[in-house]
Amino acid sequence: MERQRMPLAMDAVAQRRHASSASNRFDRYLIQKIFELSGKPRIKIQLWDGTSFCSPETKPIATMRINSRMTLRRLIRNAELGFGDEFSNGQIEIQGDLVTFLCELFKAKQNLRQNPSRFNKFYRWLTQRKAKSNSLSGSQSNIHHHYDLGNDFYSLWLDREAMQYTCAYFPEENMTIEQAQIAKMEHVCKKLMLLPGQTVVEAGCGWGGLAIYMAKNYGVTVNSYNISHEQIVYAQRRAKKENLSDRVKFIEDDYRNVTGIYDAFVSVGMLEHVGTRNYAQLGAVIDRSLKDNGIALIHSIGRNVPELMSAWTEKRIFPGACPPTIREMMDITEPYDFSVLDIENLRLHYAETLRHWLIRFDANQHVVSRMFDERFIRAWRLYLSGSIAAFLVGSLQLFQMVFVKGFNNKLSRTREHIYLPS
Amino acid sequence: MERQRMPLAMDAVAQRRHASSASNRFDRYLIQKIFELSGKPRIKIQLWDGTSFCSPETKPIATMRINSRMTLRRLIRNAELGFGDEFSNGQIEIQGDLVTFLCELFKAKQNLRQNPSRFNKFYRWLTQRKAKSNSLSGSQSNIHHHYDLGNDFYSLWLDREAMQYTCAYFPEENMTIEQAQIAKMEHVCKKLMLLPGQTVVEAGCGWGGLAIYMAKNYGVTVNSYNISHEQIVYAQRRAKKENLSDRVKFIEDDYRNVTGIYDAFVSVGMLEHVGTRNYAQLGAVIDRSLKDNGIALIHSIGRNVPELMSAWTEKRIFPGACPPTIREMMDITEPYDFSVLDIENLRLHYAETLRHWLIRFDANQHVVSRMFDERFIRAWRLYLSGSIAAFLVGSLQLFQMVFVKGFNNKLSRTREHIYLPS
Repeated sequence: MERQRMPLAMDAVAQRRHASSASNRFDRYLIQKIFELSGKPRIKIQLWDGTSFCSPETKPIATMRINSRMTLRRLIRNAELGFGDEFSNGQIEIQGDLVTFLCELFKAKQNLRQNPSRFNKFYRWLTQRKAKSNSLSGSQSNIHHHYDLGNDFYSLWLDREAMQYTCAYFPEENMTIEQAQIAKMEHVCKKLMLLPGQTVVEAGCGWGGLAIYMAKNYGVTVNSYNISHEQIVYAQRRAKKENLSDRVKFIEDDYRNVTGIYDAFVSVGMLEHVGTRNYAQLGAVIDRSLKDNGIALIHSIGRNVPELMSAWTEKRIFPGACPPTIREMMDITEPYDFSVLDIENLRLHYAETLRHWLIRFDANQHVVSRMFDERFIRAWRLYLSGSIAAFLVGSLQLFQMVFVKGFNNKLSRTREHIYLPS
Repeated sequence: MERQRMPLAMDAVAQRRHASSASNRFDRYLIQKIFELSGKPRIKIQLWDGTSFCSPETKPIATMRINSRMTLRRLIRNAELGFGDEFSNGQIEIQGDLVTFLCELFKAKQNLRQNPSRFNKFYRWLTQRKAKSNSLSGSQSNIHHHYDLGNDFYSLWLDREAMQYTCAYFPEENMTIEQAQIAKMEHVCKKLMLLPGQTVVEAGCGWGGLAIYMAKNYGVTVNSYNISHEQIVYAQRRAKKENLSDRVKFIEDDYRNVTGIYDAFVSVGMLEHVGTRNYAQLGAVIDRSLKDNGIALIHSIGRNVPELMSAWTEKRIFPGACPPTIREMMDITEPYDFSVLDIENLRLHYAETLRHWLIRFDANQHVVSRMFDERFIRAWRLYLSGSIAAFLVGSLQLFQMVFVKGFNNKLSRTREHIYLPS
């Protein structure tokens, strides 16, 4: 079941040799550089021999323990990937709250980006990456990597009602994740102004929760596309169980192969995997599959400022993923003269969603550990915690964008209908 | 009082010479070219000698009468400017509803843009213009040209409560323009989540309606900037009359000279005059004048696709004006890591607003004609009708964008507050 392709941990001998030797002047020089490269966060860095380092000006909020010289070198070579892999391997340990630690790290990095040193600019140039282009076959393998980890695994910590692996909506405090995911689906349906008998096409349907919700509660017919085999099988089984197979069709195919013309186009949590270079193509798909008076909604993680995913997340967790800025999202709408009606940012709702997931993930560690090894569990804790931190510090956003054809004048006067009880 | 700088109408002799001569083959060739250049609209074109031309395939919805050969040549030389000027001069007359005629023209042009002929591409290249950069002194003269036409003139046809020369908000049908402008100001205040005692800075305040509304109904203190002298004088007088001079300060200065730090930044209908090249500078002004937990709102005419104002509107009505796309608006937010929370498109509300203005303008023509000449009145009828048409066919949009500093986590859970009764 272990599908994460992480570098092997050092063999025991090498590890002991590195760990046992006392840190030298060069090690301590490197630590200082790491500290500078990460924007002088309020953290204490401790080496394998107990030597520690922190800014004299501020009280550290957590301690990062580096357990070997090899780990230190990997951190220098590629900060993001090195940190993620070494944390997963247990060679980096955090004493203190992981989310708080990561928030501090991300904030320091943001500050740094605004006032970079010459050394930092050089380092950034040295380690820069390019966004990947997602071809049909590339998408297939990228999506398989993450979403086909096993439905049993995801069902341990996602909401139990609809298996929504996307940002929930918490209009009130203290909602359960189940309530908040239903609220999210309601929010989406209200924005789409669905009417009984209408047709909907969905690009990227996950385990089919939204498609089934729309058919059941709004009387629409849905064609849902997804290239994750395990998800499609699960969704089809659920539709059958709910006697909705005649009104919800789950199609194992790429969004680029959508056929038919619909009253609504909806895509929740797929755009992150599309790749900015394919946005115009996505726009073309929507343009050709939307009726003249149809409404489209795209829900996606995003950015205020263009930035690639962290190298570690991109490599180990979400290959090919790239959250767009609003500017980049305009590559979908502008070429086809779509009229953007509404953009809403639900950033903090995703931090809350992820908190719920992390709590359940932690509570089910004993079950997860029967499916995956320790390294996988540490990697996923880092990924969930890192995502919470990224939404909390504002390095990630969550955009819901509603748009229609440019000449469509059958528009709702206000957005009040979204806030009226259903 | 006549401030419009239009070309002089042809002298009477030249006019008679042109008008009296029968149209020749070349004239008719030109007409056909004009017809093609404008995307083959469903209109009949009639020449001074009665010769007429229209597409054999469709029934014309209106007739455009060209009263002289000179007018025909001006149309060919610069379609937009020629049409506007010759219409204003009475050398082009429209038989049928002007708004319907313009809608047809704009729609044909949009279709054409999507499928241009080689001739059309060449003509577009030949007549292309560049956006102007609005310097401090340039802005001053541009704004003076339009907004200092006289408060008496504007008060004839704008709403009587708050003299709002920007898009109103019609949450319900059959509202008066007065009600809809109040609804607009409410909508803006609710989006800004104003609290008593807070401070607001306003960039571009018109006749001060919104500033006074905010102070009066939300208990805030406002500093409002505007470079139109006549508007500032009017606004100051009104604030004094309402005993609000201590809480609303109207400052005759450019938005770039804003000083102080505020809970809210608001700008309704100024961005159109800022010029895309100055957006980053506007972002800098907002960044330095907004508290860490402050909210900013920009309300502006916009586009789905980048396009300059029509040459005539740019030259005769709104020098320096340029409605941005959402992509272009990101030049304000991205450099300062602002987080866009909400974008709403109120396109059809502006068509409705303009209809109200046009009805009042027409009803007050006898008064306007004591202030300005016939040419001015025709030019303004064209400008108001053309604007209605542009919003109706979707060539213009109206964006309200709410944004905050990227690290601000004191966000409202939902946008429901905008739709609750005040």
